Amino acid sequence: MENLKITALGGLGEVGRNLFVLEHKKDVLVLDMGLRFPEENMPGVDFIIPNVEYLKGKNVKGVLISHGHYDHIGAIPYVFKKINNPPIFCSDLTKGIIIKRQQEFSGEKPLKIDTVKDGDKKKIGCFEIEFFHQNHSIPGTLGFFIKTPVGNILHTADFKFEKTPVNEKPTNFEKIRKFGKKGILLLMSDSTGAEELGHSLSESEIQKNLEQIFKESKNRIFAATFASLINRIQQIVSLSEKYGRKVCFEGYSMKNNAEIAQNLGYLKVKKDTLVSSKDLKKYPDNKITIICTGAQGEDNAVLMRIVNKEHRFLKTKKGDSIIFSSSIIPGNERSVQILKDEFYRNGMRVFHYNMMDIHSGGHAQSEELKQMIEMTNPKFFLPVHGQFSMFSSHAEIARSTGLSEKNILIAENGQVLNLSKDKFFVESKVPANYVMVDGLGVGDVGEVVLRDRKLLAQDGMFVVIVAVDTEKGRVKGSPDIISRGFVYLRDSKGLLAETRKKTINLVNKAAGSGGAVNWTFVKDEIRNKIGSFLYSKTRRRPMVLPVVIEV
Amino acid sequence: MENLKITALGGLGEVGRNLFVLEHKKDVLVLDMGLRFPEENMPGVDFIIPNVEYLKGKNVKGVLISHGHYDHIGAIPYVFKKINNPPIFCSDLTKGIIIKRQQEFSGEKPLKIDTVKDGDKKKIGCFEIEFFHQNHSIPGTLGFFIKTPVGNILHTADFKFEKTPVNEKPTNFEKIRKFGKKGILLLMSDSTGAEELGHSLSESEIQKNLEQIFKESKNRIFAATFASLINRIQQIVSLSEKYGRKVCFEGYSMKNNAEIAQNLGYLKVKKDTLVSSKDLKKYPDNKITIICTGAQGEDNAVLMRIVNKEHRFLKTKKGDSIIFSSSIIPGNERSVQILKDEFYRNGMRVFHYNMMDIHSGGHAQSEELKQMIEMTNPKFFLPVHGQFSMFSSHAEIARSTGLSEKNILIAENGQVLNLSKDKFFVESKVPANYVMVDGLGVGDVGEVVLRDRKLLAQDGMFVVIVAVDTEKGRVKGSPDIISRGFVYLRDSKGLLAETRKKTINLVNKAAGSGGAVNWTFVKDEIRNKIGSFLYSKTRRRPMVLPVVIEV
Repeated sequence: MENLKITALGGLGEVGRNLFVLEHKKDVLVLDMGLRFPEENMPGVDFIIPNVEYLKGKNVKGVLISHGHYDHIGAIPYVFKKINNPPIFCSDLTKGIIIKRQQEFSGEKPLKIDTVKDGDKKKIGCFEIEFFHQNHSIPGTLGFFIKTPVGNILHTADFKFEKTPVNEKPTNFEKIRKFGKKGILLLMSDSTGAEELGHSLSESEIQKNLEQIFKESKNRIFAATFASLINRIQQIVSLSEKYGRKVCFEGYSMKNNAEIAQNLGYLKVKKDTLVSSKDLKKYPDNKITIICTGAQGEDNAVLMRIVNKEHRFLKTKKGDSIIFSSSIIPGNERSVQILKDEFYRNGMRVFHYNMMDIHSGGHAQSEELKQMIEMTNPKFFLPVHGQFSMFSSHAEIARSTGLSEKNILIAENGQVLNLSKDKFFVESKVPANYVMVDGLGVGDVGEVVLRDRKLLAQDGMFVVIVAVDTEKGRVKGSPDIISRGFVYLRDSKGLLAETRKKTINLVNKAAGSGGAVNWTFVKDEIRNKIGSFLYSKTRRRPMVLPVVIEV
Repeated sequence: MENLKITALGGLGEVGRNLFVLEHKKDVLVLDMGLRFPEENMPGVDFIIPNVEYLKGKNVKGVLISHGHYDHIGAIPYVFKKINNPPIFCSDLTKGIIIKRQQEFSGEKPLKIDTVKDGDKKKIGCFEIEFFHQNHSIPGTLGFFIKTPVGNILHTADFKFEKTPVNEKPTNFEKIRKFGKKGILLLMSDSTGAEELGHSLSESEIQKNLEQIFKESKNRIFAATFASLINRIQQIVSLSEKYGRKVCFEGYSMKNNAEIAQNLGYLKVKKDTLVSSKDLKKYPDNKITIICTGAQGEDNAVLMRIVNKEHRFLKTKKGDSIIFSSSIIPGNERSVQILKDEFYRNGMRVFHYNMMDIHSGGHAQSEELKQMIEMTNPKFFLPVHGQFSMFSSHAEIARSTGLSEKNILIAENGQVLNLSKDKFFVESKVPANYVMVDGLGVGDVGEVVLRDRKLLAQDGMFVVIVAVDTEKGRVKGSPDIISRGFVYLRDSKGLLAETRKKTINLVNKAAGSGGAVNWTFVKDEIRNKIGSFLYSKTRRRPMVLPVVIEV
């Protein structure tokens, strides 16, 4: 019998860019199509998507999307151009978010989206999928129980176990146990929380802490969170209603997501609760809640505009409260600290998830992960969604349940994994590199462009333009110099004059020799000599770019 | 009677760049002269030092340096050029580190450094200082008890309370209490750990955990930490000796600091313990410890070179252990994660201070800070060394000891604080802005240069060079285009051709009009029109720089 192939084109050894491929003979099923955000050493890059060359020419029968977060849906507009517009299967909220996003991309073929819900079953090629409700930080999250010709696969999706959720059904442990009883050949389980000990915080605990803040607040409450944390937004809306506060949504993505979730009934807001920011002045401060984006310290988001006094209607006020109800994405720590400090300086009350339990990341922690493995009792185990350090912890958890070392596979993006009833191993490797998106360009920003951007950021650039009278073999006029990001030009007239003189000498020497002039050599000379000269004067290395114009 | 003035030129609302000025009539005393590292939005900047314009023309009688960390000594070579070479007072280890650093700056007047130790007293102008031993992560840390004409000031320096230190005396609580009994008008206390609850980890606890790792390790041990954490380095050296391991120091600053500390007796290493990295191959893996830099994921440090396979003698091996014994400086989280992941991928055992208690930051936490305030019982309180969020927590701690709200001052850099027996208030404000150091340039990188660097990093640059035959009023030849960091030029020939055509049309239209040509206007036209054109084609905004050469 033919074995199953599993390939991650993203999502292994990284948080984000999730895209898993299941193949049996000619039947191909794709799970999730996410993006991730760029590293610090990728200036100007908007985001990164998976390289899907591997899918080219393959018969993708369907795409399952577990939930509406961008690390699971964000690559759809790009990847769908390259595959044969297969049907997408996801919950109604996920569908709403996908369609809203798709509107930013004009001229694409409309997506075929098949809405599914907890308990629904679909046959896609040789795969039979049962979708099941999972608790996460956004409603409409679905895990996948997949019958394949070689055995059953359970893919947990992003999840946590939640007995007292807000706005949703609790985890159906019974159902997961039933899947386990059917026999699980392979468990693919979310590793994002694997390094955190114990059990993730329950939403009812968070609710209690948030309510305490509402009880004590005598002024406005700002609540900053991700626009995608619909359940947290619901908590804050409900508490505002309970304490007689109007709610103002601020920020483009916040308004969008709130609208989609409201239309589908996932966000319940009473008539008259919502007000716009320009109408806030009609209400006393203790009757106002502002739910906004920017908890990561993003440059253009609402919070930063408020702090920088650039927001039209909102300003910080002494005695206001600000609740940061979202974890900090690694790399954003400094920006968040700057934000917090500004609020402290302005006499606001700052509540951060580091200080009290007002946020849960939505990912199962060690105890829950252990329970998931015990309930499903898989033969093979593949930790997914996370960095290698998380996989390492997750593998340790799996071993602690009695799973044998050799049945646990820590895999990398691009590895084609071969799964059969009694074996699970790395078979081969296919490309799974980063594809960087910058503006309209997809994949055109590569090493060369990034290297230049980083060099330009370090010490700027220095263009020397020389006009050469080829008849006379001499520089005509004075060289033009254009420099940015290197030194403050007005204070560097001496340096520029000396550079011009040196350039003229270099060029005259070469051009005045009488013979044929090797201009490539002359330009190299300018680059090297002027580069060294500038370094000796400043200990900086701007990018020196010589231009010789023969007139 | 004349009041005392206290001014921070750095160290308030930030971690680093500590420099405090105490003034009474004409007598000026300076405490510490530190640097800080740049933010992410300051590309190319090496570090930031205080603006000391305020000290110009003042009679600085002496400079007290609390310890040898760069956030307390790093600005000395720059600031001393601007003041009248006053004597420096510090411990012998601090002196060793200052002098080593000074060697990187040639042609400076030699510093006058007066070595002091625990219990020493000095009269400097109208100030009488008693230096007292404090425990921190580097030996030779001294706090200052300062008698001034208006009353006594106690400056804690960076400190933690330590009853079981490594390699040093424990905290002398009795002495601190005695200072308290003499009456403290103002306490200036380290706030770096104020947001952390409880008591900082004791070195004996850390020792126990580190020893566990040594006991269980069957291969090489890499220990990565800051070169300045001499006490941690001592622990690892001693454990290596106990378990029969040779020690190899790797990294420029690690070797330097180890040498200085050994020469002064602060780091005790047995004869025959040290080996160089090229001799490591002579010893079995379980007899080797490598103590190195790079725990922050710095690009050129030892760990990153090992991970990138660029180190001449050291490579990762399965089964090796790596101990990260230093906290992560905010902003470095991503780089450290990348390092950790690479070690996990290579099958190494990774020990991080998040996972077990193998590091303590060297700063007093809430309980210790409370105890410090209670023991010294000050009239006024000024939290120093930290972000505003830390000051806010520290002020809360002070209030919990019964100190009155109005006697606690949360101040900002540049504020001149007026202190008398019964008042402590902000009197005025002087410049205390960032002075950025980039190569040989001190303070010449300002907003304009930084803005350009950031723009260049985002979307690169695009120089258009047009030669114009002014007699004929037409472009001569084809415009030259130089672009870097924008698009990959080889794949963009169509875009460049179209840009050239557009440029020629723009210039011919202007130059062929027959009348006098306003070249500034033409250049603006090129900048705007070509900028818009490129944006429409790419959704990127490179810096467009037009050059017109009249021939």
